[in-house]
Amino acid sequence: MKIALIGFGVVGQGLAQILLDKADDLQARYGFEAQIVAVATRSRGSLMHPSGLDTAALLAAAGSGDLAKYSDQPGLARGASAMTIARESAADVLIEVSPSNLTDGQPAIELCEAAFTSGKHVVLANKGALLHGYARLNAAARAAGKHLLFEASVMAGTPSLRLGMQALAGCTITQARGIVNGTTNYILTQMEGGLSYADALADAQRLGYAETDPTADVEGWDAAAKAVILGAALFGKQFAFADMSVRGISQLTPADISAAAAAGERWKLIAEVTPAGASVAPMRLPITHPLSGVAGATNALTITTDLLGDVTLIGKGAGGIQTGFGLLSDLLEIHRTGQAR
Amino acid sequence: MKIALIGFGVVGQGLAQILLDKADDLQARYGFEAQIVAVATRSRGSLMHPSGLDTAALLAAAGSGDLAKYSDQPGLARGASAMTIARESAADVLIEVSPSNLTDGQPAIELCEAAFTSGKHVVLANKGALLHGYARLNAAARAAGKHLLFEASVMAGTPSLRLGMQALAGCTITQARGIVNGTTNYILTQMEGGLSYADALADAQRLGYAETDPTADVEGWDAAAKAVILGAALFGKQFAFADMSVRGISQLTPADISAAAAAGERWKLIAEVTPAGASVAPMRLPITHPLSGVAGATNALTITTDLLGDVTLIGKGAGGIQTGFGLLSDLLEIHRTGQAR
Repeated sequence: MKIALIGFGVVGQGLAQILLDKADDLQARYGFEAQIVAVATRSRGSLMHPSGLDTAALLAAAGSGDLAKYSDQPGLARGASAMTIARESAADVLIEVSPSNLTDGQPAIELCEAAFTSGKHVVLANKGALLHGYARLNAAARAAGKHLLFEASVMAGTPSLRLGMQALAGCTITQARGIVNGTTNYILTQMEGGLSYADALADAQRLGYAETDPTADVEGWDAAAKAVILGAALFGKQFAFADMSVRGISQLTPADISAAAAAGERWKLIAEVTPAGASVAPMRLPITHPLSGVAGATNALTITTDLLGDVTLIGKGAGGIQTGFGLLSDLLEIHRTGQAR
Repeated sequence: MKIALIGFGVVGQGLAQILLDKADDLQARYGFEAQIVAVATRSRGSLMHPSGLDTAALLAAAGSGDLAKYSDQPGLARGASAMTIARESAADVLIEVSPSNLTDGQPAIELCEAAFTSGKHVVLANKGALLHGYARLNAAARAAGKHLLFEASVMAGTPSLRLGMQALAGCTITQARGIVNGTTNYILTQMEGGLSYADALADAQRLGYAETDPTADVEGWDAAAKAVILGAALFGKQFAFADMSVRGISQLTPADISAAAAAGERWKLIAEVTPAGASVAPMRLPITHPLSGVAGATNALTITTDLLGDVTLIGKGAGGIQTGFGLLSDLLEIHRTGQAR
């Protein structure tokens, strides 16, 4: 399988590292072999080779901060645009892992459409593209008979979408609710340990869990984007922020935290989605609730079904290798099923 | 898809009820249609019809306690033995849901082998057959090019095996540990509420969670059988009770429970399996551990992987409809993939 990556940050590099480390294992267990034929970055250059780049050398060049350090070889093209790679690279699958643009999802949506038009499957980690473009992209995928997969966009590689879409096939899902933003859950856990909101946020920033501008996390927008993606995956719906109630955790005080604790409860930032809509809000859950014990940067999702009742999945929700595995999981699905139905 | 059921207790009836209630939905969503062509019971008779039994009438007859009450129709055969049904019924899939025989797994193992030999897939909920016959049955399935699936045997229909075997494909699993016996977890939760072991057990028996002879549950043998099945599903290994350390909860006292609580911990009966072996023992877990918050008759499994770390699944572990869904889930997998690879 030939793959092209748009974006080559920690997640793209995580996938490349897995493909390098597990090449023999993936070949032996699944007959799966992947070659990276193109990589585009915003500011570190781009590389394209129809018969495949050297993954170890690619990782070394990316680690040095400049893809120009990748050695010349016959057939290598440098500096191709992301759109050229989406259209013209030899890839079977385009992997969109550029930074999410939650405002309008571009240019990722157009890149993915170009990939479908030129006969490629698309695997996404980019939340913005799904938030704004799921309906369009799903239509383009169907028209092309190609896969549109995005396991890595929610709970990193922890298989939340594969659980809902495949392992629970036969059940009717009525709701999903969960902790899908690790940064805010880390902050809430620290506040339970006695820190103020400001100190807990500073702590999260020091550890790299929170951005310098933490708005998308703490005001609930990242969780809201994931709720929209869950609506797409589980119900085939395209919900929009404009129709959603979204509240974050920035107004929670130490007094709120202690009041909940005194009542045997914990605050959690809960994203919720049903066939009718999606929302995000801090909620007080009894400490006996399965989502209540989820501490630190961990993520969790409870899927409510007609036949099984609640099924809860708990796992890591971030990290280059963990998210890279989410991409690999989609590649293996494409390998296993071939063309989309 | 034509199916035959060996055993028609709560689990078999649960599947039949789902097939009846969801016939239109399963047809519309998956193009799946199932007909029950034979049912064998130990003491309530057996029915076989090559073009299918009437599911509603079958459930009514089973509910009355005697399959003889099922009305005559042309082509109906009564009283066929389980072996005749395994060999000669028109089924594409044999479903073995007779009561588990943890001593030697018979007659289920021989029935399943006969099913493979006569060209049928096999779906099992029967733990005894897998405990003693997994290696044989796996070999027979491969020789016949047929599926051997058993999602319902661990955590009822909560998709623990499908998570480990499919959704985590690409990861290497190093360990699985969990709460796979709801009866003992219910007893432990009641003891945390202040009951003695004897009173909590009596309570579980009154509610139908525990058998009159509770040995298999409270001494850990049911959990041990599930650990063996997890070893088969996740590692392709056939472990045996003789090589395993198995301890139950019958020796735990209220003093043990309070000592753990005072230390911020909870006792849980944990089944554990690695590629090297399997075991069952009561363990003290910190209350922050994901398995620690699992209360009552609920089940949970934590799968440890190289790429994602720990992934935990929590859900119901018993019930006719829930376990019946586990069987349906395997039938849909057969429908989706066709012949086994």
